[in-house]
Amino acid sequence: MILYDNRLISREEAHIDVEDRAYQFGDGVYEMIRVYHGRSFYMDEHLARLERSAREIRLELPYPIAELKQLLHELIRRNQLEEGNIYIQVSRGTAPRYHGFPDQARPLTIAYVQHAKRPLAELNHGIRAITTDDIRWLRCDIKSLNLLGAVLAKQTAIDHGAKEAILIRDGVVTEGSSTNIFIIKDGTLYTHPTNHLILNGITRQVVLKLADECEIPFSETAFSKEELDQADEVFLSSTTMEICPIVEIDNKPVNQGVPGPITKQLQEAFVNEIKRTTLSDTPS
Amino acid sequence: MILYDNRLISREEAHIDVEDRAYQFGDGVYEMIRVYHGRSFYMDEHLARLERSAREIRLELPYPIAELKQLLHELIRRNQLEEGNIYIQVSRGTAPRYHGFPDQARPLTIAYVQHAKRPLAELNHGIRAITTDDIRWLRCDIKSLNLLGAVLAKQTAIDHGAKEAILIRDGVVTEGSSTNIFIIKDGTLYTHPTNHLILNGITRQVVLKLADECEIPFSETAFSKEELDQADEVFLSSTTMEICPIVEIDNKPVNQGVPGPITKQLQEAFVNEIKRTTLSDTPS
Repeated sequence: MILYDNRLISREEAHIDVEDRAYQFGDGVYEMIRVYHGRSFYMDEHLARLERSAREIRLELPYPIAELKQLLHELIRRNQLEEGNIYIQVSRGTAPRYHGFPDQARPLTIAYVQHAKRPLAELNHGIRAITTDDIRWLRCDIKSLNLLGAVLAKQTAIDHGAKEAILIRDGVVTEGSSTNIFIIKDGTLYTHPTNHLILNGITRQVVLKLADECEIPFSETAFSKEELDQADEVFLSSTTMEICPIVEIDNKPVNQGVPGPITKQLQEAFVNEIKRTTLSDTPS
Repeated sequence: MILYDNRLISREEAHIDVEDRAYQFGDGVYEMIRVYHGRSFYMDEHLARLERSAREIRLELPYPIAELKQLLHELIRRNQLEEGNIYIQVSRGTAPRYHGFPDQARPLTIAYVQHAKRPLAELNHGIRAITTDDIRWLRCDIKSLNLLGAVLAKQTAIDHGAKEAILIRDGVVTEGSSTNIFIIKDGTLYTHPTNHLILNGITRQVVLKLADECEIPFSETAFSKEELDQADEVFLSSTTMEICPIVEIDNKPVNQGVPGPITKQLQEAFVNEIKRTTLSDTPS
């Protein structure tokens, strides 16, 4: 079953029109929400960001977030999703092709689940990354469907036997192709500040909260490619990859080439956060 | 009838999957081709550019351009299109959502026609434009489906009672939200050079060819916002808007606020070019 507009239907019934604006312009916004133990993780924060992204591109959501939230919970139940993701996107709807906003179109919400285990091998051993130029537009704070820059960067990583591309704009690390990037230097955690050049990841926000709780000093300060190369530890954060060590960048090991102690401490805190929020008695 | 993959079917039968990569990532390329007198205008050049765009995003077209060309001619005939446009797009196909390229997906070609007259009022009297920041990515030479930056710029123009947004990057005019921009100063025609910051419009290329034939001196040199403000004439070019005078920018008239003589000369040459290519005896 997938969510189509405001009802659950079978995937086969869900037809997208060739003039859907997401299809022709990438004119829409999306979210990916993690589910653990049959319960969503930080769903409210994701839905708040969906509302913000929509507002920033002046797309009026077709029905209240509270209704969407209820439908997503039903989607989890009906698909018996225990471990996995919910993908949600809202397009500006179907209208005769013209760049300007349509007068009449009803935005189309679709959502479906993916069954997926936690990426334990990557979380335990870390991943390889490359660096590449950040050629994306100047509103990366909007989680929009214009993802071709991210797609090409990710594929470049894959071509080099790596799992993520770390993006560099004007000599500075912004974020990964689908993740936020953190470094640790002399015990302090650094990540790019929230502005138009990065997406303010929900997992990024959880990392900073956990760093605070673990009394790990942190600073939302941009760092250069050189500072990345000389970091003591590097990791990425994302909804699906959680907090994942990066142990090699551009074929050179990060420090000793193994996950570092502060990264591991944050990973442990993250696992506790999963338990706290999805194994408690209060429905999320 | 619309073209779906390599066959003509009814619009109602043409279903796009929710995991089509154009729908989720804007991962595809497109073209818009003008039809006059039932004949396509510069189709070969558009199809060559489609091939180039696909190559630049490493999308392998599912069948030869010669076959696509034949199908598009059939599309024109079957829809009895006399005056209008053909819209064509190719997505990377349908696959489980993941940023990297799918292993197996067959790219999906769709194309359909729009019946549309030449925009005579705009061509005769000119249009109003605004200027706004160019926030798009750094591969504007690729005619991709990542058009949200262009969509938002166009809508800003409409909000201001204008028909086009002229984009400014680092103080320099790049192009319009869906057009190329030209100025005339002291008898010379200027437009942004072809690089990663603009789309090399087919109509842009026709304009330069006609300027050459009309012995109008021209230079592919970037010009500033200030040079735009002080231009003798300004016009845009695009497949659907042809060569269209811009008579007002940011609520200030361009020169006398009426179409200028060199713009009109090029428009006349363009009409002759339409006749030459679509009313001759050789099939296009």
